[in-house]
Amino acid sequence: MSSRNRSAASLLAAVAMLASTAAMADQNGSSEPLTIQEQGSFAVGGTVVETPGTYNNNNPTAEGQTFHGDHLSAFYQVPQNPKALPIVMLHGAYQSGRSWETTSDGREGFQTIFLRRGFPVYLIDQPRRGRAGNSTVAAALEPTPFDQLFFDQFRIGKWPNYFDNVQFDRKPETLNQFFRSVTPNTGPYDAGVISDAMAALFDKTGPGVLFSHSQAGGPGWLTATKSENVKAIVAFEPGSGFILPEGELPEEMPSAAGTLRPEAVPLADFEKLTRIPIIIYYGDNFPTEPTSERGQDNWRVRLAMAKLWVEAINKRGGDARLVHLPEVGIRGNTHFLMSDLNNLEIADQVSQFLAEKKLD
Amino acid sequence: MSSRNRSAASLLAAVAMLASTAAMADQNGSSEPLTIQEQGSFAVGGTVVETPGTYNNNNPTAEGQTFHGDHLSAFYQVPQNPKALPIVMLHGAYQSGRSWETTSDGREGFQTIFLRRGFPVYLIDQPRRGRAGNSTVAAALEPTPFDQLFFDQFRIGKWPNYFDNVQFDRKPETLNQFFRSVTPNTGPYDAGVISDAMAALFDKTGPGVLFSHSQAGGPGWLTATKSENVKAIVAFEPGSGFILPEGELPEEMPSAAGTLRPEAVPLADFEKLTRIPIIIYYGDNFPTEPTSERGQDNWRVRLAMAKLWVEAINKRGGDARLVHLPEVGIRGNTHFLMSDLNNLEIADQVSQFLAEKKLD
Repeated sequence: MSSRNRSAASLLAAVAMLASTAAMADQNGSSEPLTIQEQGSFAVGGTVVETPGTYNNNNPTAEGQTFHGDHLSAFYQVPQNPKALPIVMLHGAYQSGRSWETTSDGREGFQTIFLRRGFPVYLIDQPRRGRAGNSTVAAALEPTPFDQLFFDQFRIGKWPNYFDNVQFDRKPETLNQFFRSVTPNTGPYDAGVISDAMAALFDKTGPGVLFSHSQAGGPGWLTATKSENVKAIVAFEPGSGFILPEGELPEEMPSAAGTLRPEAVPLADFEKLTRIPIIIYYGDNFPTEPTSERGQDNWRVRLAMAKLWVEAINKRGGDARLVHLPEVGIRGNTHFLMSDLNNLEIADQVSQFLAEKKLD
Repeated sequence: MSSRNRSAASLLAAVAMLASTAAMADQNGSSEPLTIQEQGSFAVGGTVVETPGTYNNNNPTAEGQTFHGDHLSAFYQVPQNPKALPIVMLHGAYQSGRSWETTSDGREGFQTIFLRRGFPVYLIDQPRRGRAGNSTVAAALEPTPFDQLFFDQFRIGKWPNYFDNVQFDRKPETLNQFFRSVTPNTGPYDAGVISDAMAALFDKTGPGVLFSHSQAGGPGWLTATKSENVKAIVAFEPGSGFILPEGELPEEMPSAAGTLRPEAVPLADFEKLTRIPIIIYYGDNFPTEPTSERGQDNWRVRLAMAKLWVEAINKRGGDARLVHLPEVGIRGNTHFLMSDLNNLEIADQVSQFLAEKKLD
């Protein structure tokens, strides 16, 4: 090769490397700009409660007035040249759509990561939470000090110590942001109310993929029994609401953090879950045997119940898979897989699943 | 001109027209894509409350646990090639950052309109509201039927009739979305708590422009007394919290909807408001004389107080202006100027103000 050809070749190689780096940077959520075709928000679902009587404009009381509540609130973004199926992200307990935005240590969360990967993304505040705060049922809110319990229960460590391998940044400001992502229920938690609103959302969006986190596992399964537009579920550490056919419930599972009970639904509803691909991810630092460590033992039984649940789905011809991340070599994940330090690696796992199932 | 030259000229004219249409479409919030350099969310401000005692990981009670509350929650987007000063948008009573997103009839709100105009935009959920729900003070939430009162008080009309000229779409779904944008306080309303968190936000963002709506008027003025980074205030229908120097308070103003009282602050704080440009906008359908029409009379006194307030600012060398929109030929606006049918015309008014004051 002449020296001129060698120069041209190395220039080409450099350009290829730059192009590949740019593509990676984009894929990996760096500072490449995002092109948004459309964004906005709306409420969907819910009910209207009316107080009997006649409304008097100039002396208003409750009489004759209505109250709109129990809807969900959605914020959506559609990237340019979007993939066909949007992703709908439903948060867990004490959380809001905020769960999927910036991570506690300031990196991009799944909202922006999956937008970069070409999916329309819907972030939900479920009925009686966050911006969907209007509840048709009253509630008393108390400032309940749960920070240390959350640190333990969400498997960041055993307060005040972090797990050695934890995928959670240790700057104090990170923990501050994490604690401030908490927001309370503004009415009683009700999986039926949530899944009704979610089904109404899927009526509006059309076919899509549901991501659920933690407590949203249960309402997520119920949503798929109520709407045929749920084409797949990606469940991050589902914590409760494992629905199984009436008469086929496994035994309750006691743990140091309380007893986990499966929930009965008609067989016809359960069977709807066998028609879509489902994947469940759990992170690290689960005990293998019963232990008095409350924060961890809580998850031992949830993982065990999820395994039985996946077996039950597949026994009836379904397509469910449970990935316990340490078993595939991914270590140190907390309960918040989507915002852990390795959240891009988790996103890659999910992207691979979506590709396998031709959902992307 | 030869026929070829004429063709070329009309082609050029057509291209110029297309380019101009595209630019207009962009400016006017149509379907042109948005290029976002960065987006994300965080909490800022607030306090930490600690319960005395020792935390027991395996038998957790309140003892020794902390609670993070009274922060605000912010979602921000930075367009490509952003202007220097971001716009921070603070919602009013019963509302959240949702106020500035999609309008009730499904068009782009001020969030996206001002992004298209090149400003970084921060949407706030104030402390004890929406996604910033953790309040250090307890609250009892009741589903309070206020829809008809809101219809009247926010000057959509006199329930069940719309004002003839109202800039509010009359499809039932529009009213449904409007009512569902309501979300309750999760703790007592406290302008001091809100303005503390807002000042912490401006510490983080650096110099910026504050947009306030309705009840946020008061916390907005207070924020400017607490942070020198508030470089201007655009107040949409401020409803209360008119702060004036101690000893210089005008008389209380009774109305069919209750009595409006000015609020006293030290002169030194008031004088801080004379150092920045301030503009206040009010919409249409205000009564000129006292009336028993509660929904409208409420605004008669607020407009009157705002006029006194602007005079007081300017008397001390400040730069405040009040625009009562019907007086400049803009008719039919409700209390929600930023999402009315003519919200692009309102945005143009604001853009003109920002340009005049060299804030863009």
